[in-house]
Amino acid sequence: MLPVMLLLPCRTSRALDFLARVRANDCGAAAAATARRFVVGQETLGRVLPIAAHALSAFPQTFEISDEAVTLRDDPAWSSGGGSASEVDAALAGSRSAAVSRVLNALREEGAVPMLRGWRDEAFAVRPSFYAPPRLVVERAAAPLFGLPSYGCFTNGFVVDRETLKPTHVWLGRRAENKPTWPGLLDCVAAGGIAAGASPTKAMVEECAEEAGIPREVARGLTSAGGVSYTGLNEDRWGIKEDVLFVFDLRLDPSFEPVCTDGEMSEFRLVPIEEVADMLASSEAIFKPNVGVVMIDFLVRHGFVDPDEEGYVELLGALRSGALCSGKKS
Amino acid sequence: MLPVMLLLPCRTSRALDFLARVRANDCGAAAAATARRFVVGQETLGRVLPIAAHALSAFPQTFEISDEAVTLRDDPAWSSGGGSASEVDAALAGSRSAAVSRVLNALREEGAVPMLRGWRDEAFAVRPSFYAPPRLVVERAAAPLFGLPSYGCFTNGFVVDRETLKPTHVWLGRRAENKPTWPGLLDCVAAGGIAAGASPTKAMVEECAEEAGIPREVARGLTSAGGVSYTGLNEDRWGIKEDVLFVFDLRLDPSFEPVCTDGEMSEFRLVPIEEVADMLASSEAIFKPNVGVVMIDFLVRHGFVDPDEEGYVELLGALRSGALCSGKKS
Repeated sequence: MLPVMLLLPCRTSRALDFLARVRANDCGAAAAATARRFVVGQETLGRVLPIAAHALSAFPQTFEISDEAVTLRDDPAWSSGGGSASEVDAALAGSRSAAVSRVLNALREEGAVPMLRGWRDEAFAVRPSFYAPPRLVVERAAAPLFGLPSYGCFTNGFVVDRETLKPTHVWLGRRAENKPTWPGLLDCVAAGGIAAGASPTKAMVEECAEEAGIPREVARGLTSAGGVSYTGLNEDRWGIKEDVLFVFDLRLDPSFEPVCTDGEMSEFRLVPIEEVADMLASSEAIFKPNVGVVMIDFLVRHGFVDPDEEGYVELLGALRSGALCSGKKS
Repeated sequence: MLPVMLLLPCRTSRALDFLARVRANDCGAAAAATARRFVVGQETLGRVLPIAAHALSAFPQTFEISDEAVTLRDDPAWSSGGGSASEVDAALAGSRSAAVSRVLNALREEGAVPMLRGWRDEAFAVRPSFYAPPRLVVERAAAPLFGLPSYGCFTNGFVVDRETLKPTHVWLGRRAENKPTWPGLLDCVAAGGIAAGASPTKAMVEECAEEAGIPREVARGLTSAGGVSYTGLNEDRWGIKEDVLFVFDLRLDPSFEPVCTDGEMSEFRLVPIEEVADMLASSEAIFKPNVGVVMIDFLVRHGFVDPDEEGYVELLGALRSGALCSGKKS
């Protein structure tokens, strides 16, 4: 018979504290399990919560609703115009966009769907992958209604010890008090959304200049370092936010200081990395939630989380929950 | 109506080449979808393929087999001995281990299960997480029969440019021609399995010394940098290998040279990182398969894969497929 060894679980673990922060940000996962697939042209492109499916069921000409799926009804005429393959695709995408736009405008007029009050007249691409052409576009405010993946970019700005080459300090921004979302909370040095067809690297360089006054020659030091993902829940609980964030590292000279350029941030502060780690391990809501995820990923990549600590393995998975995890099955 | 922008897909993408290599290593995912849950004391601890479930069904006293699960039958007497909670758990684990051992020995004698020919008389812990006490132990050769997660550690040894601090060269080992697995293929500078209850960091330091003659004072520079996972298929197609690999970076002085110490490797070579990237992007089988995954993760973390390239987002998910991905749902 084989011997049985019993492990004693660790008494305290910062990895478990980090895991709690990352999982708290992934707050839409449970709701998403109750959602129906959003199907366009036989591809599953998002997820629709029951309350949203019910609202869309008032438009049976545009959406077919079953227990499993909300399917956009394609009219064969939409793709019968001829031309090259990409012309046909563009015509189809345009017709779909117009049909969905009519539904969203009607819902907006009724005032029945809270998230549509945030209407921005901005196009949001619906696509099976970041690199694929959009199958249609919808108003940006409606993206969570269909649980559509959305993409952003984040920069970790930091200073290293010239001898050990390890990060010693991280730049933290504080969000302006007049920002509509997460005012006064701590942020990365720069971050932003990525429009369909835009380059993550170029978007990052622009955000660095706009938000933190980082000149182009300094931004040349940006290093693409992977990414994180999570499933958020829209504040009104009508929709699912499938965020994928491209993560960049930017080692800054100790003499360099970011400056508040466009009013998004009220201050920047260079904080010792152990202090940042302690703040992230506490359960206090001092960071914009997804910034906490990005910074914990930074700590993991640079050796500031101990793999011997309980929760480390689960943390690695949690940092890529949501779209990056489910994506692999497709 | 909103404008429709159409993206042209990239003509060539090294990210797609890397994705193909990572996905090829994740070769057990499709088979695993046909597997039944391996349930011990109401916890799902692994997955059993249909052929293995059929073999285990000859032992109905020990295993209850349904269409969804293979459940180890616990006898209430096993945990009725009294004592402290950990004593009861140890007694239960011991009794389970003995019951399963009887079945495995019988199967081995019959010669019906190919993987049991590799019997090693070595205990393998069955546990719900890396940090949890084992619920039972089984013979190591039988771990894939139950699709049990197994843990390893890998070191990327590299040299950086002192000015840019970016890696310029990577140390590649070549596996000895007399190794039973993957002889002659390229490997990391050091790697190994992690026994239940062992520390990933300590295991890594020991492997560095044993396989590459890296002294303890040099190994002090090991930086824990995350991990990768994948679902392998046992060569005989009877079992599933759920591997989770802890990944370490080790920046080495340009004057330092690893040496072949225990005969696992036949040579070490310092290779320019662009050359390593080209080798990994090719479809040639020149790397031990999971080493390819570990090295592509290294390239991603250090900015050698372009996030603008098609496949980058999918690559991020693929690097943590298998146990790290499914784990998040538990």
